[in-house]
Amino acid sequence: MTTTIGVFDSGFGGLTVLRALIQRLPRARFAFLGDTARLPYGSKSRRTIARYAVQSAQFLVQEQQAEFLVIACNTASALALDAIQQAVPVPVLGVIEPGAQSARAASRTGDVLVIATDATVHSHAYAAACQALKLRALEKACPLLVPLVEEGWTAHPVTEQVIRIYLDELAAEANAQGLDPDTLVLGCTHYPLLRPLLERLATAGTRVIDSAESTAEAAARLFNDKTTLADPQPRGDPSTRTLSPHAHGWDTSSAPPTEIRCFATDSVEKFERLGSRFLGRPVGPVALIDLGG
Amino acid sequence: MTTTIGVFDSGFGGLTVLRALIQRLPRARFAFLGDTARLPYGSKSRRTIARYAVQSAQFLVQEQQAEFLVIACNTASALALDAIQQAVPVPVLGVIEPGAQSARAASRTGDVLVIATDATVHSHAYAAACQALKLRALEKACPLLVPLVEEGWTAHPVTEQVIRIYLDELAAEANAQGLDPDTLVLGCTHYPLLRPLLERLATAGTRVIDSAESTAEAAARLFNDKTTLADPQPRGDPSTRTLSPHAHGWDTSSAPPTEIRCFATDSVEKFERLGSRFLGRPVGPVALIDLGG
Repeated sequence: MTTTIGVFDSGFGGLTVLRALIQRLPRARFAFLGDTARLPYGSKSRRTIARYAVQSAQFLVQEQQAEFLVIACNTASALALDAIQQAVPVPVLGVIEPGAQSARAASRTGDVLVIATDATVHSHAYAAACQALKLRALEKACPLLVPLVEEGWTAHPVTEQVIRIYLDELAAEANAQGLDPDTLVLGCTHYPLLRPLLERLATAGTRVIDSAESTAEAAARLFNDKTTLADPQPRGDPSTRTLSPHAHGWDTSSAPPTEIRCFATDSVEKFERLGSRFLGRPVGPVALIDLGG
Repeated sequence: MTTTIGVFDSGFGGLTVLRALIQRLPRARFAFLGDTARLPYGSKSRRTIARYAVQSAQFLVQEQQAEFLVIACNTASALALDAIQQAVPVPVLGVIEPGAQSARAASRTGDVLVIATDATVHSHAYAAACQALKLRALEKACPLLVPLVEEGWTAHPVTEQVIRIYLDELAAEANAQGLDPDTLVLGCTHYPLLRPLLERLATAGTRVIDSAESTAEAAARLFNDKTTLADPQPRGDPSTRTLSPHAHGWDTSSAPPTEIRCFATDSVEKFERLGSRFLGRPVGPVALIDLGG
């Protein structure tokens, strides 16, 4: 029986985390849930976010038999990780702590910049996680970056101009606070698609930390059951869709097939249309589920 | 007893409609509800949107004694107007029909352009309303404009560049379809804040139609009880907050005080912070209510 890893986001940005997980745990079975009926979590209160996130986590554990959960959503990680950990009997990993750990490993000056959505910045979850690791963090909300990614303008002159403005404002603020940042943390699951642009536009020598990558690395480390995940035996229920990357022309020549089941709580059209950009391979059909609300 | 007009949006963009209503019906009492816990409606299904919108409409009629409802939300107007009209015993006006009527009055060629959010465009509600009036409409989703307005970049070079791109794409598509558009309909309640930029960047001679203005005009026409709304007598419950525009330094020198009560279903911070830009005067404190979900 292959281990099922449940991956949860309020939308489909968390597919960047799933993508990084697949690269490191290619033999696991993945169940991804996007709570699209109730996104974005960013504008909602802690209590509401916790209620939604717990319902989503319970679906993955109880209905999909996930034995391990990755909260691939910065807002839910920032505001509801404790509530989820209390609600389900399996290990739960968020994206913020691994991102801060990677920043700690990368930074020489001890000063880091964090870009994220408005809600994540207001929670100051990254600042707190960084402070616990003796890092000084300067956080900045970049609310235009998610819609620019969703518009598909990941290498567009407008996006370049917007990123320049945000990074200039960050640099001025860091300077005003007497910080000497050498590391930039991508605190939103949409931002990995902007990584090439961000790496080019950031101050020379800046190390860019992708929380999605950091989280996948942390998840792989937490897994002791690597034998199962590397098991080449035929797996599980034959009715489950098996994606063979070779059949779709994606550049994953050495990757074995991975089982991915995707679920959403409402309109799956945008998820199916944009999801492949985030996952780096087709997401296939997305099943609609009802969590109430 | 002054008439209460209920105004409903999924967020706070509908405050542009409220602003236009206040200018025309300064003696009415207004109750505005932003269903912020469940926004944006745009990515949700018709059934879900109808359920949310009906709950919101019932709050305004049953709890706030609204005798007239304005659905200041393009998505809810497009997908749930019938459901709302069936659920409440008061007249209900949406934003789409008035916008199409104004376009009909403005256009000489009979060809109009509509810019709106992704959800509104996908519903083709404007195209249908225009077609019923013998107009040919070309609709385009402009998903970056709402976040640009919310970032406060209403006169920013980036916003100008984005609008140029959208309008150029629209012009090319209109040309390809053999259309000769002379009218541009703003099919989103955030867009009135971009009107100066849109008027400057649109093809010379284009008439810009603001659905918020059109809807307020239609609402004023539908009101036969104008005597009550112009009544200068002291009004209603003294515990209700009365906004005197003179006290806030807003340029409304001839406007009498208007009673506005604002409600939201979740986090009111963004509403209070950005609402005044849309309303053109302070929104004051926003009361948090629970509609479930």
